[in-house]
Amino acid sequence: MATGTLFGVGTGPGDPELMTRRAWRLIEAARIIAYPAPDTGESFARAIASDAIADDAIEIPMVVPMRTGRAPAQSIYDEAASAISEHLDAGSNVVVLCEGDPLFYGSFMYLLARLKDSYDVEIVPGVTSLTACAAAHAHPLVARNDVLTILPGPLDDLVLAERIATAEAIAIMKIGRHMPRLKALFSRLGLADRALYVSHASLGYQRNLRLQDAPNEAPYFSMILLYKGDDPWIR
Amino acid sequence: MATGTLFGVGTGPGDPELMTRRAWRLIEAARIIAYPAPDTGESFARAIASDAIADDAIEIPMVVPMRTGRAPAQSIYDEAASAISEHLDAGSNVVVLCEGDPLFYGSFMYLLARLKDSYDVEIVPGVTSLTACAAAHAHPLVARNDVLTILPGPLDDLVLAERIATAEAIAIMKIGRHMPRLKALFSRLGLADRALYVSHASLGYQRNLRLQDAPNEAPYFSMILLYKGDDPWIR
Repeated sequence: MATGTLFGVGTGPGDPELMTRRAWRLIEAARIIAYPAPDTGESFARAIASDAIADDAIEIPMVVPMRTGRAPAQSIYDEAASAISEHLDAGSNVVVLCEGDPLFYGSFMYLLARLKDSYDVEIVPGVTSLTACAAAHAHPLVARNDVLTILPGPLDDLVLAERIATAEAIAIMKIGRHMPRLKALFSRLGLADRALYVSHASLGYQRNLRLQDAPNEAPYFSMILLYKGDDPWIR
Repeated sequence: MATGTLFGVGTGPGDPELMTRRAWRLIEAARIIAYPAPDTGESFARAIASDAIADDAIEIPMVVPMRTGRAPAQSIYDEAASAISEHLDAGSNVVVLCEGDPLFYGSFMYLLARLKDSYDVEIVPGVTSLTACAAAHAHPLVARNDVLTILPGPLDDLVLAERIATAEAIAIMKIGRHMPRLKALFSRLGLADRALYVSHASLGYQRNLRLQDAPNEAPYFSMILLYKGDDPWIR
């Protein structure tokens, strides 16, 4: 018997209307659906896709505590990969929901690492928070022959400052508790008044502000965008 | 009378199934549609969206010669903005089709610059070639707290080498005629055997190869991806 296919499906940044048509159709047809979930509360990936999920689909939540060391996370992905393998071995396809895009800062790669050598895999790319945040401000993310550098907020100030210096366009992701430090860094670099802030891009409660007006309490799903060129609007 | 809204709508990388649900619906409902077009042949953005375009929609092709100086391009966007303004002033919405995402290396920004201060604007983000190319290889684009740097291929070797040195993940866009030089650069840096190549991501004639096996004749719509970390598959 043929084994099933593993689908890594990007759900986009949050608005279900920003799911791709292929993602929507695959999820509607899916009999077995896996997704990351927090230890308390709702899975964001599942919430985005919920209107497409069949009532009788088998669901495999992968409960990953928000703050965890590497060892427990490893065992969580081992267990999820094992549960998914059983369905694939039985010839069923499995759809794994991934916030944004599966291969852009996603935890899907941990499943992929465990399953890619044994099963057929198809990745359905999704709209990332990167372009959703630029859309929120209707401001160019990057243009012409500019360099765009994407930086995780937890990196050291020194690393961030060096990388910011060598790109025309910058996006800082995974902000959360790093916000006060990042605001201070942008001020020291003289860039605070030009940087933009977005949280919860594409959702009803999206906030888009200039960085200097942004709250110090920022969620994990927020971003700082900066266009450093002289004029992003050069015609 | 209220003026219309300007919609900048990402069509995704090429496969119409990778258009978002919102993009599809907006295009289906659009009475006036603008898009970039080459001086000969079909508009790629229009081709992606063609099944959603109503037969009686008014179409505004913006014919931008592939090789042009700044001055003729300026006048082309001036004229397109003027044609679009007439419809917006008459209270009609206008949908502008954008390959990939409107704000990610897109020519939409030239229209946006001309129209943003006078009209309501909504940007509909799209799947970029960046994540579509990673999907083609089912290989992580960027993970954990890695730095991702996106580099246009026309940049100098020296600039490219410096930026490649300071990021864990790299994507090189707009390759085209720069391919032989870029392959030589990756070889000199000792990175040729680890880099991946994709052309025409998500289309039926997509090619995904290792860079060292890629043809020297590369289309403009092709990309080099490199994950420099020790192991993109760390579990």
